[in-house]
Amino acid sequence: MLVHKIDEVKSKIREWKKEGLKIGLVPTMGALHAGHASLIKKAVETCDKVVVSVFVNPIQFCPGEDYAEYPRTLDEDVKLAEGIGADLVFAPSPDEMYGKGQRLSNDTLAYIVPPFFYVDKLCGKSRVGHFDGVCTVVGKLFNITQADCAFFGQKDAQQLVIIKKFVKDLNFNVEIIPCPIVREESGLALSSRNKYLTEDGKKEALVLSKILNNIKACYDKGITDVNALKETAFSFLTEKHDMEYLEFVDKDDLEDKTTADDNTLVLIACRVEGVRLIDNIILGK
Amino acid sequence: MLVHKIDEVKSKIREWKKEGLKIGLVPTMGALHAGHASLIKKAVETCDKVVVSVFVNPIQFCPGEDYAEYPRTLDEDVKLAEGIGADLVFAPSPDEMYGKGQRLSNDTLAYIVPPFFYVDKLCGKSRVGHFDGVCTVVGKLFNITQADCAFFGQKDAQQLVIIKKFVKDLNFNVEIIPCPIVREESGLALSSRNKYLTEDGKKEALVLSKILNNIKACYDKGITDVNALKETAFSFLTEKHDMEYLEFVDKDDLEDKTTADDNTLVLIACRVEGVRLIDNIILGK
Repeated sequence: MLVHKIDEVKSKIREWKKEGLKIGLVPTMGALHAGHASLIKKAVETCDKVVVSVFVNPIQFCPGEDYAEYPRTLDEDVKLAEGIGADLVFAPSPDEMYGKGQRLSNDTLAYIVPPFFYVDKLCGKSRVGHFDGVCTVVGKLFNITQADCAFFGQKDAQQLVIIKKFVKDLNFNVEIIPCPIVREESGLALSSRNKYLTEDGKKEALVLSKILNNIKACYDKGITDVNALKETAFSFLTEKHDMEYLEFVDKDDLEDKTTADDNTLVLIACRVEGVRLIDNIILGK
Repeated sequence: MLVHKIDEVKSKIREWKKEGLKIGLVPTMGALHAGHASLIKKAVETCDKVVVSVFVNPIQFCPGEDYAEYPRTLDEDVKLAEGIGADLVFAPSPDEMYGKGQRLSNDTLAYIVPPFFYVDKLCGKSRVGHFDGVCTVVGKLFNITQADCAFFGQKDAQQLVIIKKFVKDLNFNVEIIPCPIVREESGLALSSRNKYLTEDGKKEALVLSKILNNIKACYDKGITDVNALKETAFSFLTEKHDMEYLEFVDKDDLEDKTTADDNTLVLIACRVEGVRLIDNIILGK
């Protein structure tokens, strides 16, 4: 069932809640791929009813980012989601989510703002305001769907930590279920933005997973000094790779690490053919 | 029933929700007076189960404000609330609400932040960060209690508008019920901070309601020019009154008014004996 209006979702949810059903939410920006499919599958397996939201959220894009060009494939998305067993696809317009003619800014709209410590690093450093937009839309979706569980990919590792944090801080009644990164056979982490890459670009994009795998291999051999581990990355980089960051942090609170351990999350962001790609690995996994 | 732990509240609420009961929330900072009593009474009349929260919320006090001295009278509060028919009094510690040893700042905690337009005026102008703290704690209480209805006094008029706004913007599933200001026979609006006043101070504090009543009388006689209405205030003021603001705004969106109408909210803030007092009136009522 495809639904565009908040009130329609709320009334369906009320029905389901009355029957005591467990509701799962998979929030997406659409352009669904096998990564999203794995989230929806997990949701279908563990919940009675599953809502997949498809919404390219304008307030999480920064000026100069790809809001207008972001791939929109709603018909295919609905087919894929329902094929896996989703009960409801919620695809609102920006007007429906933020009010018709409303200026999308913190001057006129209330926001959920994650802690600065969690935001002022990694992707948040270059994408100012991005996580405010993410938390705000996700909090809205939690309220609209009254989800018992919500499913997020480990691919967006900083986002996952930040969402867990605001859910805890603001006492939302939802359990956050992280799901592993899905990769192509080549090792490339699935992303809707991979669509922007040429075939050659997809090969160059393997540098992210190669760097991470090599760091993990070095860690497994006993190297724990973060500077030494970082240096192993350089041999992989050419002028086709515009690296934004390679960071080692605690997987739960994003504290910087100087010595790696099993809880260390290694994150990388790198542009290939102008496309910003991210990937990450937890060393103890 | 007095409860200090979030988990205890949540488990009680789960029970009630299973029975399909309608839950009302009256959020307070304690030091309950007849104003709060009127909120609790309304909640008891319209809901199946009523939760009164008593929490002096540290993050809504600005530096130099009266957080430490704010009156705390929990035993009396519980008696009063239960006497009216409240089913649960929730009185958490700051540690319980914000985490033990947690630094209370937007560096380490997620916040609900109301739109700047609604905040950068009236009380928000002198109380920077105050409404961030209010919205955050109220949002937390909505999530903890899953209230169907929440009751707020018209006394804190800007707060009421801001809470309605963030509830709408973030799609919280709670109906906000405004309740009229309760006054002493003298006209003085009830406030927990009236306890700071001497007998003489309480007389001087009547200036707030006198100014508002006079403005209303002038409006009823046909004066609608806001500057003219503002000027009527001056004859009431002496050196014992330190006026902070007297403003005319739309009662729903806080837009400044130059011409008064029935939807105009007139707000006043004035210090008497160093105590910051507020009052307001809607001209059409």
